[in-house]
Amino acid sequence: MPPDTPPPSISTLARARLDALAKPIGSLGRLEHLAARLAETQGRLQPETRPRRLILFAGDHGVLAENISPWPAEITAAMIRLIVEGKACSSALARSTGADIVVVDVGSKTNESFNHSFHRDWRVARGTRNLAREPAMSVDEFSAAWSAGARAAAEAAHDGVKVIALGEMGIGNTTPASCLTALLTGRAAADVVGPGAGVVEKGLQRKVAVVEEAVRRARAAMATDPNGAMAAVAGFEIVALAGCIAECARRGLTVVLDGFIVTAAALVARAIKPGGLATAIAAHCGAEPGHRIALDHLGLTPYLEWDLRLGEGTGALLLLPLLDAAAALLTDVATLAEVAGP
Amino acid sequence: MPPDTPPPSISTLARARLDALAKPIGSLGRLEHLAARLAETQGRLQPETRPRRLILFAGDHGVLAENISPWPAEITAAMIRLIVEGKACSSALARSTGADIVVVDVGSKTNESFNHSFHRDWRVARGTRNLAREPAMSVDEFSAAWSAGARAAAEAAHDGVKVIALGEMGIGNTTPASCLTALLTGRAAADVVGPGAGVVEKGLQRKVAVVEEAVRRARAAMATDPNGAMAAVAGFEIVALAGCIAECARRGLTVVLDGFIVTAAALVARAIKPGGLATAIAAHCGAEPGHRIALDHLGLTPYLEWDLRLGEGTGALLLLPLLDAAAALLTDVATLAEVAGP
Repeated sequence: MPPDTPPPSISTLARARLDALAKPIGSLGRLEHLAARLAETQGRLQPETRPRRLILFAGDHGVLAENISPWPAEITAAMIRLIVEGKACSSALARSTGADIVVVDVGSKTNESFNHSFHRDWRVARGTRNLAREPAMSVDEFSAAWSAGARAAAEAAHDGVKVIALGEMGIGNTTPASCLTALLTGRAAADVVGPGAGVVEKGLQRKVAVVEEAVRRARAAMATDPNGAMAAVAGFEIVALAGCIAECARRGLTVVLDGFIVTAAALVARAIKPGGLATAIAAHCGAEPGHRIALDHLGLTPYLEWDLRLGEGTGALLLLPLLDAAAALLTDVATLAEVAGP
Repeated sequence: MPPDTPPPSISTLARARLDALAKPIGSLGRLEHLAARLAETQGRLQPETRPRRLILFAGDHGVLAENISPWPAEITAAMIRLIVEGKACSSALARSTGADIVVVDVGSKTNESFNHSFHRDWRVARGTRNLAREPAMSVDEFSAAWSAGARAAAEAAHDGVKVIALGEMGIGNTTPASCLTALLTGRAAADVVGPGAGVVEKGLQRKVAVVEEAVRRARAAMATDPNGAMAAVAGFEIVALAGCIAECARRGLTVVLDGFIVTAAALVARAIKPGGLATAIAAHCGAEPGHRIALDHLGLTPYLEWDLRLGEGTGALLLLPLLDAAAALLTDVATLAEVAGP
């Protein structure tokens, strides 16, 4: 190779390996795509998928005062408790796929104390302010939430974790996620807003109106103060997710994105850090309309289309065993040349 | 309940349990659908997914004489060898998901002897006859292949297996699978025939012509001699798959279908035994056009759309960990009532 030719990328090398395996070229379709992407995120041809960790960020939302959710804020804390007790859907799926769990509370309103080894109380504040009336958080709070997310990624790396699955809990958080998606993709509020965890009819119109107005103000600020613009319509758990995603990119740590909220956080991660999605894999595309819009905007292709809308990292967890299969393809199958012999 | 009301079905009970879990109703989308279906196949609300076994049926095809495949028949035996040596794609995926493997040769042409505990030489004949010129097999051979498939299911049940993943190996077998799909769905040859493992352009036209003519003859015989009509255009491994699927139904053993060939076998299973698909779950919809046609005709909804076209049970294996997740949902998550307490 001439000296000025750059070495082939890991992705190119992985594809070459996949093409050389004892099978028709491309016959494993999207599993091959996933295998190449997994190798790329870790910068190695023999990617590892264990140990793995589900990191759940939790926060509450002042915008609940606008009556945009059928659920009260107390449910956020109830969900934290359910996770801590190992009884939630994501608890069961994490056990099923062999992931440990860390819950990072960056902004819930609860007074309950959860004394558990995998619970972190890293709260920036007790809930955001109401984004319909005032900025949801200050730029300093935005930075603090981002740092909490980065810290969770650093902790995972320190523990030897090879793959992070990301999820969230926060009643009302499809509203800030919709704001951020509209703000960062340029799409209209009506395009990105969906029913979330169950808002219907009049509630949905109210939600669209809240998002429209908040995004209008944020757009005006975007040119001069992008961090302030994003902070005004964000949620603590969303900013922490963004910080976690970007820190994973910096460390070459594979990070699997869950649903609409986590994908909105990926938009934030990329807006703040170019290359912030270098190690991100989109697990699925769910029922919320803004989810596909955000994925398309980011150029991320989801692997599962299962109409999921629970959150809690459940979609990301479902992809983990499929990552195992993708890794096995690269590490554990003979090439045609090996089969044919010397 | 009044005495003449039938008890609710397992599927209904499973859906009620899923609706009662500590999450918004229906928020886990197709995972809930899969959980209800899994429970239904086992007739119990706490379905089990281990131990599980990949059963691969192998056979060769006289129709290769028509030059409808770019691969020679010897590749079938080479694939058996690769599986026996644990080096194939399905070997790696089976290890990844914790499935053991049984390879049942019902009709390869090889003279090689595979002395391995998981290889079964239950050959009906050494390859089918050329279905373009004469019936591929007799009705007696059809019955023998069916019985070999049923025997493999019985052996798995005896070994305590809870879930079977089905796959196949047989160069040229998309041609009989296309014939059976056209014959049993009523669709035209041109609709169901695809490139299989790599036939292009003129080869594809030849393949369509072969299927068209063979199906024309088989349709004429269908009313008076359905088994003979199917036998005339079948393959040994396809008939064995059908027998295995039907025997799984009889025993309440969950059976996960792989690609186009296995789905064509499911058409045969249902044609021969009403209720023959009672325990079948379609893993995926692949690249071959006849695959979706067969799935739609059977009313089976695939879970993965990954453009797979390798066979070897690879698609069925990918679904196994997702079955684990579905089972965990039913067995390992608290209900809202349990969370709320007495």
